[in-house]
Amino acid sequence: MKQLAVGIDIGGTNSVFGLIDREGNMYGEGVVQTKKFPDFDLYLEELYIGINSLLKTIDFEYELMGIGIGAPNANYYRGTIENAANLIWKGIIPFVEKMKRYFPNLPIIITNDANAAAIGEMVYGAAKGMKDFIVVTLGTGLGSGFVANGQLIYGHDSFAGELGHVIVNRGGRMCGCGRKGCLETYVSATGIKRTAFKLLADHIENSEFRNYSYNDLTAEMITKAALNGDPLAIEAYEYTGMMLGQALADAVTITSPEAIFLFGGLAKAGKYIFEPTKKYMEMHMLSNFRNKVKLLPSGIDGKNAAVLGASALIWQEIESN
Amino acid sequence: MKQLAVGIDIGGTNSVFGLIDREGNMYGEGVVQTKKFPDFDLYLEELYIGINSLLKTIDFEYELMGIGIGAPNANYYRGTIENAANLIWKGIIPFVEKMKRYFPNLPIIITNDANAAAIGEMVYGAAKGMKDFIVVTLGTGLGSGFVANGQLIYGHDSFAGELGHVIVNRGGRMCGCGRKGCLETYVSATGIKRTAFKLLADHIENSEFRNYSYNDLTAEMITKAALNGDPLAIEAYEYTGMMLGQALADAVTITSPEAIFLFGGLAKAGKYIFEPTKKYMEMHMLSNFRNKVKLLPSGIDGKNAAVLGASALIWQEIESN
Repeated sequence: MKQLAVGIDIGGTNSVFGLIDREGNMYGEGVVQTKKFPDFDLYLEELYIGINSLLKTIDFEYELMGIGIGAPNANYYRGTIENAANLIWKGIIPFVEKMKRYFPNLPIIITNDANAAAIGEMVYGAAKGMKDFIVVTLGTGLGSGFVANGQLIYGHDSFAGELGHVIVNRGGRMCGCGRKGCLETYVSATGIKRTAFKLLADHIENSEFRNYSYNDLTAEMITKAALNGDPLAIEAYEYTGMMLGQALADAVTITSPEAIFLFGGLAKAGKYIFEPTKKYMEMHMLSNFRNKVKLLPSGIDGKNAAVLGASALIWQEIESN
Repeated sequence: MKQLAVGIDIGGTNSVFGLIDREGNMYGEGVVQTKKFPDFDLYLEELYIGINSLLKTIDFEYELMGIGIGAPNANYYRGTIENAANLIWKGIIPFVEKMKRYFPNLPIIITNDANAAAIGEMVYGAAKGMKDFIVVTLGTGLGSGFVANGQLIYGHDSFAGELGHVIVNRGGRMCGCGRKGCLETYVSATGIKRTAFKLLADHIENSEFRNYSYNDLTAEMITKAALNGDPLAIEAYEYTGMMLGQALADAVTITSPEAIFLFGGLAKAGKYIFEPTKKYMEMHMLSNFRNKVKLLPSGIDGKNAAVLGASALIWQEIESN
């Protein structure tokens, strides 16, 4: 009988869920509009109905093994979502406890998006068989999941892996966290926009970006311009790669990974992000580690990556027991 | 029958070994002068004779469980000491393989000094029962051992935990590793000496340190002066604590430890190092982690700490199997 897991990716706008087997094949998906449900109990009921409808579409015999959830500010140990700035529910949401009422006999596991991506990489992706690696997710912010000894590092309170909030430039750019110079203020969709504006300020050359307001400019536009050979866009990526490469060289000294995977929007710029990141990472690397750590694109990055990552929590849990 | 482990601490000058039980009680110790044996095979023979002599002094029934070794540049996976600058043996020494000839039926484990200190802290010391913590060893350089999920992070090639070589000031002080601005150029016995000389250069106040050459000044003298209220020594510690506190705040974002232990020479300055380190760590901490991470003195720090740490490798290995 085929074993399936539910994967749920909770975002500020939508929650996407799907049914996935051990090999990462997806058997249908569904969506609940997160922000339409300020009442968490109503949201959960809608999600339950959605998952049940999806299960009814499965026309073969299956065994449901568990539900894995990726969500911002999720606490793996407590099964909660805690003070997530981008979600409509405020305070501490006892997600797993409440979901258990609908699925009392299933393992239900929640963690943050970047940790889910790391476990997805290990279960389905390019980190299969690796015991020590780092996944860096480049979205609006910068998330990360660190795996050591074959296990995700959750840390004492489940909030480990905040590489985006390592200070890379003391007194540097203001960060949403209230401090200055965090890596994600340089390396993220928002970070590269800030870099593009800094370059517009520093340089005098003409650029198509001089026609856009800060609010209209997107990281995708910078990526597209870089791929078309625009010098300012390429320079923005070079700077982004420098900041990321330096930070990764430091991260390597701590956990000594076999590989580092780049996942998400900025990684789509291909050589424009990978080449400078690799160059500056090696340039700043402690000699022990030089030319030993692979810098690779994610093996699961794509439309369903976040749902895949969430479902992977279940297979990982089953196999580690 | 009492179970005993051999712990060996290999230093550039001496190798100290001892017999230790599961509770950390030591039953005699011995010394081999490392640097008197450029021929590693002769060294190992001398060490074997020493351990055997020590075993003969034990006047109760015992079972020997294994041999744990802490050494600079030791590779846990390969059982080797690799290109250790401070040891008389050059290149790659197959330590475990060669020692197995003398003790073919015993587990023999080698790791670097800081990792041994971390496992010692977990087995005998103040980290008992903790799953996630960091030990920072403050000697001539700065070493560290990171424990996550109850396991030491060796990383892909066994050289994880090089916190001393995280860059804390890009373009800063020259480091022995060939790069600039590494944490250990600021936070270590050598680092605080450099800081004292910087302060002598920057300030005009008189100070007893103006009577010493760089080669004559020691970190112990600075510690002693701080404990006697000398303003320059206290300022040197304040600066050292600032650099360490900032770096620890960043390390916390990666592994989210329950506690950080300070071990070794500089930790003996008590409040002069703990207070500024704690202050700057909290000041620079991501809010998730603020006031949650304990900063503590090592629970095994003392005369035999390194031998204890080395022996702990055996108990840790037995219990994790």
